[in-house]
Amino acid sequence: MTIDEANGADGERSPSVVYDLDADCTPDDVEEGVPYLGTVNGVVDYGVFVDLSESVSGLVHESNLRGEYDVGDEFVVELDQVRDNGDIAFEEVDIDEYDVEPVDHDYDLGDVDSLTEILGETVHIEGQVVQIKQTGGPTLFHVRDETGVVPCAIFEEAGVRARPGVDVDDYVRVTGEPERREDAVQIEADSLTVLDGEDAAAVEDRLDAAIEERAAPRDVEPLVEWPAFEKLRGDLESVARLLRRTVLEGRPIRIRHHADGDGMCASVPVELALERFIDEVHEDPDAKRHLFKRLPSKAPFYEMEDATRDLNFALEDRERHGQKLPLLLMLDNGSTEEDTPAYETLRHYDIPIVVVDHHHPDPEAVDPLLTEHVNPYLHDEDYRITTGMMCVELARMIYPDMTDELRHVPAVAGISDRSEAEAMEEYVDLAREEGYDEQSLKDVGEALDYAAHWLRYNSGRHLINDVLDVGADGDEERHRELVDTLAEKSRRDIEEQLDAAMPHVEHDRLDNGAHLYRVDVENDAHRFTYPAPGNTTGAVHDRKVEETGDPVITIGYGPDFAVLRSDGVRLDIPTMVTELDEEIVGGGVSGGGHLVVGSIKYVQGRREEVLDSLIEKMAEADIDEELGSTSSPI
Amino acid sequence: MTIDEANGADGERSPSVVYDLDADCTPDDVEEGVPYLGTVNGVVDYGVFVDLSESVSGLVHESNLRGEYDVGDEFVVELDQVRDNGDIAFEEVDIDEYDVEPVDHDYDLGDVDSLTEILGETVHIEGQVVQIKQTGGPTLFHVRDETGVVPCAIFEEAGVRARPGVDVDDYVRVTGEPERREDAVQIEADSLTVLDGEDAAAVEDRLDAAIEERAAPRDVEPLVEWPAFEKLRGDLESVARLLRRTVLEGRPIRIRHHADGDGMCASVPVELALERFIDEVHEDPDAKRHLFKRLPSKAPFYEMEDATRDLNFALEDRERHGQKLPLLLMLDNGSTEEDTPAYETLRHYDIPIVVVDHHHPDPEAVDPLLTEHVNPYLHDEDYRITTGMMCVELARMIYPDMTDELRHVPAVAGISDRSEAEAMEEYVDLAREEGYDEQSLKDVGEALDYAAHWLRYNSGRHLINDVLDVGADGDEERHRELVDTLAEKSRRDIEEQLDAAMPHVEHDRLDNGAHLYRVDVENDAHRFTYPAPGNTTGAVHDRKVEETGDPVITIGYGPDFAVLRSDGVRLDIPTMVTELDEEIVGGGVSGGGHLVVGSIKYVQGRREEVLDSLIEKMAEADIDEELGSTSSPI
Amino acid sequence: MTIDEANGADGERSPSVVYDLDADCTPDDVEEGVPYLGTVNGVVDYGVFVDLSESVSGLVHESNLRGEYDVGDEFVVELDQVRDNGDIAFEEVDIDEYDVEPVDHDYDLGDVDSLTEILGETVHIEGQVVQIKQTGGPTLFHVRDETGVVPCAIFEEAGVRARPGVDVDDYVRVTGEPERREDAVQIEADSLTVLDGEDAAAVEDRLDAAIEERAAPRDVEPLVEWPAFEKLRGDLESVARLLRRTVLEGRPIRIRHHADGDGMCASVPVELALERFIDEVHEDPDAKRHLFKRLPSKAPFYEMEDATRDLNFALEDRERHGQKLPLLLMLDNGSTEEDTPAYETLRHYDIPIVVVDHHHPDPEAVDPLLTEHVNPYLHDEDYRITTGMMCVELARMIYPDMTDELRHVPAVAGISDRSEAEAMEEYVDLAREEGYDEQSLKDVGEALDYAAHWLRYNSGRHLINDVLDVGADGDEERHRELVDTLAEKSRRDIEEQLDAAMPHVEHDRLDNGAHLYRVDVENDAHRFTYPAPGNTTGAVHDRKVEETGDPVITIGYGPDFAVLRSDGVRLDIPTMVTELDEEIVGGGVSGGGHLVVGSIKYVQGRREEVLDSLIEKMAEADIDEELGSTSSPI
Repeated sequence: MTIDEANGADGERSPSVVYDLDADCTPDDVEEGVPYLGTVNGVVDYGVFVDLSESVSGLVHESNLRGEYDVGDEFVVELDQVRDNGDIAFEEVDIDEYDVEPVDHDYDLGDVDSLTEILGETVHIEGQVVQIKQTGGPTLFHVRDETGVVPCAIFEEAGVRARPGVDVDDYVRVTGEPERREDAVQIEADSLTVLDGEDAAAVEDRLDAAIEERAAPRDVEPLVEWPAFEKLRGDLESVARLLRRTVLEGRPIRIRHHADGDGMCASVPVELALERFIDEVHEDPDAKRHLFKRLPSKAPFYEMEDATRDLNFALEDRERHGQKLPLLLMLDNGSTEEDTPAYETLRHYDIPIVVVDHHHPDPEAVDPLLTEHVNPYLHDEDYRITTGMMCVELARMIYPDMTDELRHVPAVAGISDRSEAEAMEEYVDLAREEGYDEQSLKDVGEALDYAAHWLRYNSGRHLINDVLDVGADGDEERHRELVDTLAEKSRRDIEEQLDAAMPHVEHDRLDNGAHLYRVDVENDAHRFTYPAPGNTTGAVHDRKVEETGDPVITIGYGPDFAVLRSDGVRLDIPTMVTELDEEIVGGGVSGGGHLVVGSIKYVQGRREEVLDSLIEKMAEADIDEELGSTSSPI
Repeated sequence: MTIDEANGADGERSPSVVYDLDADCTPDDVEEGVPYLGTVNGVVDYGVFVDLSESVSGLVHESNLRGEYDVGDEFVVELDQVRDNGDIAFEEVDIDEYDVEPVDHDYDLGDVDSLTEILGETVHIEGQVVQIKQTGGPTLFHVRDETGVVPCAIFEEAGVRARPGVDVDDYVRVTGEPERREDAVQIEADSLTVLDGEDAAAVEDRLDAAIEERAAPRDVEPLVEWPAFEKLRGDLESVARLLRRTVLEGRPIRIRHHADGDGMCASVPVELALERFIDEVHEDPDAKRHLFKRLPSKAPFYEMEDATRDLNFALEDRERHGQKLPLLLMLDNGSTEEDTPAYETLRHYDIPIVVVDHHHPDPEAVDPLLTEHVNPYLHDEDYRITTGMMCVELARMIYPDMTDELRHVPAVAGISDRSEAEAMEEYVDLAREEGYDEQSLKDVGEALDYAAHWLRYNSGRHLINDVLDVGADGDEERHRELVDTLAEKSRRDIEEQLDAAMPHVEHDRLDNGAHLYRVDVENDAHRFTYPAPGNTTGAVHDRKVEETGDPVITIGYGPDFAVLRSDGVRLDIPTMVTELDEEIVGGGVSGGGHLVVGSIKYVQGRREEVLDSLIEKMAEADIDEELGSTSSPI
Repeated sequence: MTIDEANGADGERSPSVVYDLDADCTPDDVEEGVPYLGTVNGVVDYGVFVDLSESVSGLVHESNLRGEYDVGDEFVVELDQVRDNGDIAFEEVDIDEYDVEPVDHDYDLGDVDSLTEILGETVHIEGQVVQIKQTGGPTLFHVRDETGVVPCAIFEEAGVRARPGVDVDDYVRVTGEPERREDAVQIEADSLTVLDGEDAAAVEDRLDAAIEERAAPRDVEPLVEWPAFEKLRGDLESVARLLRRTVLEGRPIRIRHHADGDGMCASVPVELALERFIDEVHEDPDAKRHLFKRLPSKAPFYEMEDATRDLNFALEDRERHGQKLPLLLMLDNGSTEEDTPAYETLRHYDIPIVVVDHHHPDPEAVDPLLTEHVNPYLHDEDYRITTGMMCVELARMIYPDMTDELRHVPAVAGISDRSEAEAMEEYVDLAREEGYDEQSLKDVGEALDYAAHWLRYNSGRHLINDVLDVGADGDEERHRELVDTLAEKSRRDIEEQLDAAMPHVEHDRLDNGAHLYRVDVENDAHRFTYPAPGNTTGAVHDRKVEETGDPVITIGYGPDFAVLRSDGVRLDIPTMVTELDEEIVGGGVSGGGHLVVGSIKYVQGRREEVLDSLIEKMAEADIDEELGSTSSPI
């Protein structure tokens, strides 16, 4: 502690205290009128010389001496005067009983974010080690204080880990000179001390308080007033706080998201908000590449293949770069039981998992494995609040300055997922103010779908940003033209697919009055192209709903899977799946969905049986003209 | 302008001109006997001191003064003398009426390509910014002059973009010291001035003239005299000029090419020519890796999947490295309507597209989207001029010194594509002089096919170079042995495939007398191995032509596609496809090709109908014994 | 040679020898009492000045002169005295007949591994060039001496290859100063001399001897005494020596291995042993990433696709980094004829191939292409000695300090491959001492299989290390829990697969009394998931063996392949395959295996015929209740 700290908040000093300077104290640490413990290091004719620290020594002239002392004796002195040449003179203080209070050097602590202003000067940094990287030369300790993160180089022997006793998460004091290296500022450290006890606690408190303050989500008004959304706002604020804290702590973030329009509308704004916040926090301009990655999921859930790959990359990065393991953020994805094998594998590592999704959740299965879980169903709302709508607000809580870029996004998300949320009208109005009519919003959604298809499992960052016009270079004209081109190609390909498929569609009338349409998407449509079976089925269904009117069910089936869509019929798909699995021995039926959209898998050799039985169940389902698959995402 | 420039070409100076030195002029800019405008900055007993620029000042002794002046007054002086200690003395000039002509500092402009000779000295560079890269330390402005490109570092604050007003494509003057950094020379810039008006125009003109001159394709005689080829020569020269200019301007080039023998024979020579030219132009030895990439196409056209991936990489490189977007060069590929969705997507970005192809083109569809389009059909020639033949000449126009490595390549290209061009004999003779007999040329072609199959969609640069013996390390023996090994494996695998498939081949005699052979390449041949369905069909066809003699048609069909080959029957495949698509509702028939080679796709469930109908049309096709699929590429 | 060397081991000098200093000798090379040849370079009143080398000159005072000499004359001198100011005086020696022995400068040779102690001082290194890398600045010659490898930088012109006459493998002497660069120590070389003749031979001998000594495998006792294994020990020692030598010579190593439990148990220990040895040998902490790579094979043999990719990467690395081509180490894989096309392709390059495998080998086909081939069958042993068992010993020979981490691995390998080796009991005991009971060993094997499936063709280094608990961070609890999670998921997925498949299994009784079970793994089981067809067939078989008891044969068939398993029936699968291929025209039958396990491929259209004919042959096979597929790996 420094004297100021020792003095307490009121500035009053207890008269019975004498201060004992730490060895590294300098003349700057010595204050007038304050008693210090001195040690005699020399006796001369005209007095004695005392040491207060390694660099603080001075004469006590005989006229100022009260006793006689030999080398090694200790007595109490106060500052007498500092001569022009820097020599210091002390006088003895008459004090008998006192408590000794140690005084640390009053480190003039530097801030990591202002090191470039003092290149080459000595600076002291106190903070926490967040990464330790061994190079072929020095060892680099990345130290975080409340203002940022800086690498501190210590050289023991080429390629040999310096200070093996220092670990990630230790609190340390570093003394050294900031230097400009090839690509960033780093401290050439003269010393690195692991703090413990009170010192560590003080730094920890300071950093925690600073992080806590900086992590606080920004208080932004939702783009649209909406009671249903209000229920979710607190949850989203918690996620925003957690994500901001994650960035501040230097932990990487990996997003996995549904590879469709709503998934893009959810993940792209959050990606940009996090990247901008990372840029703000970290000195290294490449930090956002090291600390952030967005990837679409291969399946509508978090497959083991994706999870093992993600895990292995994370472990690799930890070994190679000394990075922390990431936080996993699942968007428009991740609420269901199918995600649990992946979660259970990651659970054995320090990888927090956060889900923001609007698909029908299975909280019993997933919640024990999650750090945060935001889903409208958990608040008696439903899929109409799309993930894109939630994530635009989440992005704004993380980095509010991007609001202007995002006003049209909830409308795109809603239209992509055919949301009939009460707020849709207002969202569409907002988008209209940005120059989007309803057709152009639809076009953006179709262009996203089309681009996502061809990008396969790449994030396609720049192209998607241009299509969605978020974080792009602001070339409005390119955005419009690009969307036109892609949306038009999308419609043309869907048209070609329908030309091939529609003549093969079989029609039946079920007992409950519903029209049933069946199409073999493997045999009677183009394979391995756009649109894929799910979208093909959707296009057939939409066309038939238009032609026939409700109630309509469409089944698009392949050798071992089927996609289901309904308008006006209440299909309880989870229950149907459970029943089919029980009834059809060796059918291997699984799948999911909800009232009007779903998909099932089965064993190829039982296809006829499964489909026949499925249709029997559909014929018994309730008609509910209100229900439309147009209001529901897959 | 400098005084020499101001003096004009004749060296005569107008008597009524007085020169006004720019602030950064130095004593070196001052010439004897030339009148300059001076500004009084001090008055002393024995005269006045005048400033001509920031660093040019001197005394006008009273004996040389004609008037009386106060501080701030301007009058005209000439150099009187330069003393040994560097002091300058001026004398007043008697001149009443004059025009003032500004004089810029006569920058001793350095050349980018000779910076290593003046490391540490101050140098001035004038050129154009071609790339701006922000590092964690300085901002790097890559500046191009007529001799090369050099990074100029400016440090504002760590990781903060210096000089945000400077953009790519600006013309600038840089003053600084060339230093050797880890991996290259860079200028530590003291100043970077954006030029405008005349200055910018002068640099632009200079660079343009230099580029224009350097971009000029080399005037090389074709390897073989050939009237048909002469028609294409001008087009190829335009492409060579454009590609050389692209390299000089620092724009990356990406080649996409057909993944077969002719495609390799086309792309490998161009790849090497461009890489060598890049090496010649750019200081950075890694430039060719940053500025060039060759990739085989997944399909016989430019798929949306490839295009979105290429686009995204390009946008990523622009963001990360400040690189320009690339020029796309399509080789042995790219002339057809199927390429247009990809082209239309790229069109919205600054990505020029150039095609050199010999497949039947659809100029109406593609030309509006292309910068250059070379195709023999556009000059009433045909596929017999293979892309490999054209590109060997193109490579020589770009970098003529590689001619000796390329003499055998057109023959390999021709034999791979079964070209019966009139020049084939001469090409084969050329190859014979290099030690290739006809069998060994065939072997190289087969080895290329075999290697390309296993490389999937990797360029396989080094292996392919060794197989084609272009740009390889000149180990002739390895080349021969490697070709022998691969060609033998290829033949063995084809033999095994035929052993499986031939017994299943069905035979019919059509009404027009043609033999029709049909083979189910999915059901009656090995799948997912070499040879793939196209090559399997070709091998069956060749075997049957040998056995039966013309006219022969072979159909190799899978569940939703068929490959067609003909010898002696004139198949108008595009017309057949159009008719089939119209006649067979829900058939989803598409495809292409020309007289003797083609492929079609259809919906699996309509296979029988499509094939039956196709065969009916074949039975009505004209017999033309001249025609052979042996003379036509896919 | 230096004088000490010239003096021989006994320190006695022949009296008739006069030494002739090399031009670069310094005063330090001059010894008292030793006769040197001097050349007169000046005559003065009081004597003559003689040169002994470029930097060794001195006066021979007239009082010490025996004859009269002119400039250019040679005579013999000895050291008289060295004055305080460094001046040297000589005296003439009276000697008439003598042999002249040249003396090289006594280079104070530095060791590469102790350069960090003498940063900035001049050092001499003698060694062999192992890599030459051109940067944009200097050329880096990586020089290996007996202690390590160091880059030596020579700057000619930016980006221009310095000393083009110097090649990889040359023996050189380098003089320069070690400096700390960004990431490692490098020598800024003042000179680099290619040694030849005796000098080169001396360095070569020295390095060879050092390498030979360092390459020697460590003499470790096998974990388990086992006569069968003793036969293989010498072979494994040869491989260990070769691998250690490969590391010492700076040649990269690439492992390709079977992607199953035994393959992991084989490759992971060898990977770790090599990485640790590389760390020990090379200064660069990234060396192990540049010099080592492990990849699972896509197929149970070395496919052309993998081989062409590996080859192309290797050639790319050679070009970009000047690296040597790698040694290829095939583990649990590589002994069969199917591997030969790949080997024959690699044979044309400098890529030694080493195989350690326990599958039935075809030494006639592969041995001519291999540098080393270890396989129990070559010593009349069989698959019961699993590759994992062999490779644990191999790893210990390479780097014995890891023994404690490996004790449980042979048991996992044996149980994964259902080995009934006599040593199994002892291996299981060893594992028990480490805390594994039989169930937990099985769990590790299942977890490896499950993880390998989802990792596809990634090495999954860190995850696999954690599952196998080798080279992991020693978090025992995570290891156990991770294994539990993965093994449980594996069992659940197998259970689901069996639920789907078992009801479809067809049963027959063959004439030889064997039960035959057939399952269509494409039509009656889930596709594209875990377990894949091979494992599905195995699970069905195991279940049926349990239900029915021996003898049991199970066939799991897809459209163009079948997997075979037997318990208690002696199937000679290679013979069956040969017969089927001959008998069924157009069947395209191929495949392999041995007595109780195998797989075959055929053309889809001949499936019924092939399977019927196969079953007929099975019905004639001998019953042998001893035999179990439980004792045999695929």
